[in-house]
Amino acid sequence: MSFKRYLIGKPLANERLDHERLNKKTALAVLSSDAISSVAYATDQILFVLGGAIGLAAVQYVFPISAVIVGLLVLVGISYQQTIHAYPGGGGSYTVAKENLGQRAGLIAAAALLTDYILTVAVSVSSGVAAITSAYPALVPHTVAIGVTAILVLMFVNLRGVRESGIAFSIPTYAFIVMMLALIGLGLWKLSNGVTPVAAIAAINVDPTTAKHGAFPAGYGLLFLLMRGFAEGCAAMTGTEAISNGVQAFRAPTQRNAAVTLSWMVAILATFFLGVSYMAHQFAVMPTTAETVLSQLGHHIFGGGIAYYALQYSTFAILVLAANTAFADFPRLAGILANDKYMPSQLAARGDRLAFSNGIISLALVAILLVWLFNGDTNNLIPLYAIGVFVCFTLSQAGMVMHWLRTKEEGWRWRAALNGIGACATAVVSVIQVVTKFSAGAWIVALIIPLFILILQSIHTHYRRFAIDIAFRGRSPILPHEHTVVVPISAVNKATAAALVYATTLSRNVRAIHIEVDPNATPKLEREWDRWDIGYELEILSSPYRSIVRPLVEYVTHLQEETPGALVTVVTPEMVPRHWWEHLLHNKTALYIRTAFLFKPNVVVVAVPYLVGHDYEHEERGPRWTAEASVTTGEVPAAKEPD
Amino acid sequence: MSFKRYLIGKPLANERLDHERLNKKTALAVLSSDAISSVAYATDQILFVLGGAIGLAAVQYVFPISAVIVGLLVLVGISYQQTIHAYPGGGGSYTVAKENLGQRAGLIAAAALLTDYILTVAVSVSSGVAAITSAYPALVPHTVAIGVTAILVLMFVNLRGVRESGIAFSIPTYAFIVMMLALIGLGLWKLSNGVTPVAAIAAINVDPTTAKHGAFPAGYGLLFLLMRGFAEGCAAMTGTEAISNGVQAFRAPTQRNAAVTLSWMVAILATFFLGVSYMAHQFAVMPTTAETVLSQLGHHIFGGGIAYYALQYSTFAILVLAANTAFADFPRLAGILANDKYMPSQLAARGDRLAFSNGIISLALVAILLVWLFNGDTNNLIPLYAIGVFVCFTLSQAGMVMHWLRTKEEGWRWRAALNGIGACATAVVSVIQVVTKFSAGAWIVALIIPLFILILQSIHTHYRRFAIDIAFRGRSPILPHEHTVVVPISAVNKATAAALVYATTLSRNVRAIHIEVDPNATPKLEREWDRWDIGYELEILSSPYRSIVRPLVEYVTHLQEETPGALVTVVTPEMVPRHWWEHLLHNKTALYIRTAFLFKPNVVVVAVPYLVGHDYEHEERGPRWTAEASVTTGEVPAAKEPD
Repeated sequence: MSFKRYLIGKPLANERLDHERLNKKTALAVLSSDAISSVAYATDQILFVLGGAIGLAAVQYVFPISAVIVGLLVLVGISYQQTIHAYPGGGGSYTVAKENLGQRAGLIAAAALLTDYILTVAVSVSSGVAAITSAYPALVPHTVAIGVTAILVLMFVNLRGVRESGIAFSIPTYAFIVMMLALIGLGLWKLSNGVTPVAAIAAINVDPTTAKHGAFPAGYGLLFLLMRGFAEGCAAMTGTEAISNGVQAFRAPTQRNAAVTLSWMVAILATFFLGVSYMAHQFAVMPTTAETVLSQLGHHIFGGGIAYYALQYSTFAILVLAANTAFADFPRLAGILANDKYMPSQLAARGDRLAFSNGIISLALVAILLVWLFNGDTNNLIPLYAIGVFVCFTLSQAGMVMHWLRTKEEGWRWRAALNGIGACATAVVSVIQVVTKFSAGAWIVALIIPLFILILQSIHTHYRRFAIDIAFRGRSPILPHEHTVVVPISAVNKATAAALVYATTLSRNVRAIHIEVDPNATPKLEREWDRWDIGYELEILSSPYRSIVRPLVEYVTHLQEETPGALVTVVTPEMVPRHWWEHLLHNKTALYIRTAFLFKPNVVVVAVPYLVGHDYEHEERGPRWTAEASVTTGEVPAAKEPD
Repeated sequence: MSFKRYLIGKPLANERLDHERLNKKTALAVLSSDAISSVAYATDQILFVLGGAIGLAAVQYVFPISAVIVGLLVLVGISYQQTIHAYPGGGGSYTVAKENLGQRAGLIAAAALLTDYILTVAVSVSSGVAAITSAYPALVPHTVAIGVTAILVLMFVNLRGVRESGIAFSIPTYAFIVMMLALIGLGLWKLSNGVTPVAAIAAINVDPTTAKHGAFPAGYGLLFLLMRGFAEGCAAMTGTEAISNGVQAFRAPTQRNAAVTLSWMVAILATFFLGVSYMAHQFAVMPTTAETVLSQLGHHIFGGGIAYYALQYSTFAILVLAANTAFADFPRLAGILANDKYMPSQLAARGDRLAFSNGIISLALVAILLVWLFNGDTNNLIPLYAIGVFVCFTLSQAGMVMHWLRTKEEGWRWRAALNGIGACATAVVSVIQVVTKFSAGAWIVALIIPLFILILQSIHTHYRRFAIDIAFRGRSPILPHEHTVVVPISAVNKATAAALVYATTLSRNVRAIHIEVDPNATPKLEREWDRWDIGYELEILSSPYRSIVRPLVEYVTHLQEETPGALVTVVTPEMVPRHWWEHLLHNKTALYIRTAFLFKPNVVVVAVPYLVGHDYEHEERGPRWTAEASVTTGEVPAAKEPD
């Protein structure tokens, strides 16, 4: 417990939940790390896929493909400006789809979002680790270990529920922005002074396993390849929806500030993505499994040194922030789904530090599993990524079209048209995503999203049925006719005495029974019982198969058949030893008895704890169970309270 | 459960415990597999140790060393004849040492025995696997897997509690005896027709890592080496005590039959051991990590073919039987120790099939761990072996000396002298064992045996203290002054209603409380509560830190302080869903509450199970908790039984 306190911190009260509003600059840092950090891997993925088929010729296609993606980005950005105005309380895809397209569309969006949040953590952390291992190749064998450590650190930080502190987010984000501007600016200046391609180095660096220089594809083959490259590059667009989800975090004028910040973010992302792809083309950079495009550009343009390391560290930092975004979003969405009864109710509970602890831990575990299964390699994970994002883009914008058609607000026609164009474009891209990447891993996501929907629906069915099952119709229930208390006695000692005395306070009808596992021990017990003289007969039940539980269950079943409508309570002593290891030295009979009766209706099992070594005789706050007083023998203590 | 039935079989009644008496031939098969099977590894170990230092010259020493061991074997055999006469009920080392030398000596014997039973399983199984891999070298990489499988099969066979069926034991034992006689007979015949040493092959086969042909040792160095070889060869004597332990298994005249069988066993073991060592000398056989001495002799004398494979299979079979002996002895001794309160009481409980299930499982797990840690290599395990056996020989015979001095039976003088000589000889060997093998692994045993004794004593101390703590002095205890029942209510539903109704049957003093985690939900609950109108106030406890348990514990503590001497029962509903996975969808609040109060004296927690989906309204055998009846509102149902 105290170790938990040290790691997580003291509990926080509910009032601490209201949070500060952010200005535009801070909001940009907090909400756009996921989007902007994509430039660390998007260009790489285009080149990696193309290079695998056509080698160095790939660099000719990277800029045009990036330009198409940026066009799509601007379209989606404009589309989300509408969402900001329509949903000032935050328009997540689940909310927008559910409200406008129905619960089923909402569930698809939810499943796609949950999948993508998990992948955001895995991809961003893997890519961040790649930024570090590019700078320090000696660390390559420890990729998985570094990735897992990073996820665990994120998990603990989020369990502590650290506020989204402006400075913690601003420093890495703006550091990355500065380094990227420096890289692109210096790169353009170098280019204006004549090109010195990296190709010579890159040609050696091309991974021979992926770069099979076969026949150069043409016609449909080339088209499919370019589409695949486009689909992989679309990973650049993940995170675009973050600002429209988090409108309520902005200072007044809320909507206008959010809209302006969204424009900034799109502009920055577009500039960086085009800039990196252009540099990659001009300098003929090919990513390898050991070094990223950004790292190669950094080496080439900055020529190593402090600037290069600053670029790599800031890349790592912003990618970790991107993963952190998922650590905020996944548990929040899981909590919303839990409140809507689509996820286990535990996910809706805020922990000691007001964070959705169970969601955070679940996300971390699944992400660690992914990083471990895919060897922490961004190239392996990316084909799974971005599919869910585009499904959400489509549902969210389609939902907005319905919204405008329904509300008919001012300018609804052109607004609906804009969202409609966005929805169609992203729908087409969703199909391209699944088709071109299917064999590379998209099939996993194509399986997981429907499976997720199925699980969400089964959970919902369970809770609905459960609510009906336990609904109480509001009048007083009748009382049980009779209450029989059964006390299994293994020996006469303070613990069984305590149980028996407790039993006498519950009912007049107490049955003390002994289940005879070892017939040789019975006479001694009977002598002790007679000496005790508590006033009850001790019934002996034989147990030829040495089981305690079976004869007891049969006895109780027989009691219930004898007097239908009777309530039966089984009172067992439960030894609580001084130290945990002493538990190993005692049978868990009380536990077995409880388990055996758990599924039998109208039987209640009471374990009366006896604290071994506790000084009951000098106990101030309770009855002295074991004190020796002379109660007239034979007379059953009748009343439950001595009035 | 049905899977367990399939693996283990139906429960057996206590009466099945009496077992058949054995005739001499069957008893020899049942009781001597451990001893006789030792010839499969004893000669190997002498050669392995000597060969590692002096190479092929080792074969010159193997026969003299074996002869000394056989002399010791005969001495111990005669000594144990005395035990048979003194302890017709079975004279295990623990019993003999405890009765004659005191509890402390008994504990040393017990610790040494337990250690050696574990090693018997590990060594016999490893050696048996070596017999198989010698015949099929392709299986060498699977040594550990085969060994672990063999131990698991032994575990399940013993959990089924298969009777010590004569035939199952006789076939492998007598097959091995026949094959060994054939091997030695044919070997002698071949020798009389001129020797063709295996040396040429063996020289190649000698494992270069162990055969460091350095300077030939002389003086003390050679003496120490020969002592070490002697110590390793003493593994041949393990199992000699089996017949004197199991006297009661013999048919009448019990003691005479046992004594004769012991003589047979010693004679067979002596013949085989001397025979194998003589052959090894004459044919200049050196064991390798890949092929045993017996296998090499088999190849050389039988020339391969059916006879060779029959030898290997029967060797494997008798070694598995030897391991099986430990599976009978370890749990039996653990059970005796548990009855004497030196081991956890669970080890004294016979399972469904009358076997000491917990002891069998523990032994199998530890033996598997050993085989895995030591790579299933007999050569690695043997240095740990036989130490415990000689400690037991010593204690047992020393105990017999005391026995004769005390009883002064007929011939007590020469009997005491015989046992005394045996005790001295085995004491010396014990010291040689520890000293010569110390760095090779004996230090592990030298640590484990004292640790075992310490554990046995701590367990005993716990049980003794526990017995004092819970001892009840035989008069009726006084009743608690007052009984307050607290029912935490999270919502009004059938489960909480059942809990509340149950609470009213326990005491008039019922407190319904609601722990307010989400203040927004309270008004709805209060409305539902008023509509129900059960007649109790609903107290609202605020919980700013969202914990259910902490405010409840504080409330109960406060109650106990308010009315000292009061007994408090907390009644919680416990949802029992239809399917196990549905548990994952509900909070385990009932469990948390029980755990929180487990260490608080004078508080009893009652979980009233509510079987979700169970048709309580048409339940025949119990009260209809949830039926709607009109009880006059405001009136508290008072009586615990409506008489």
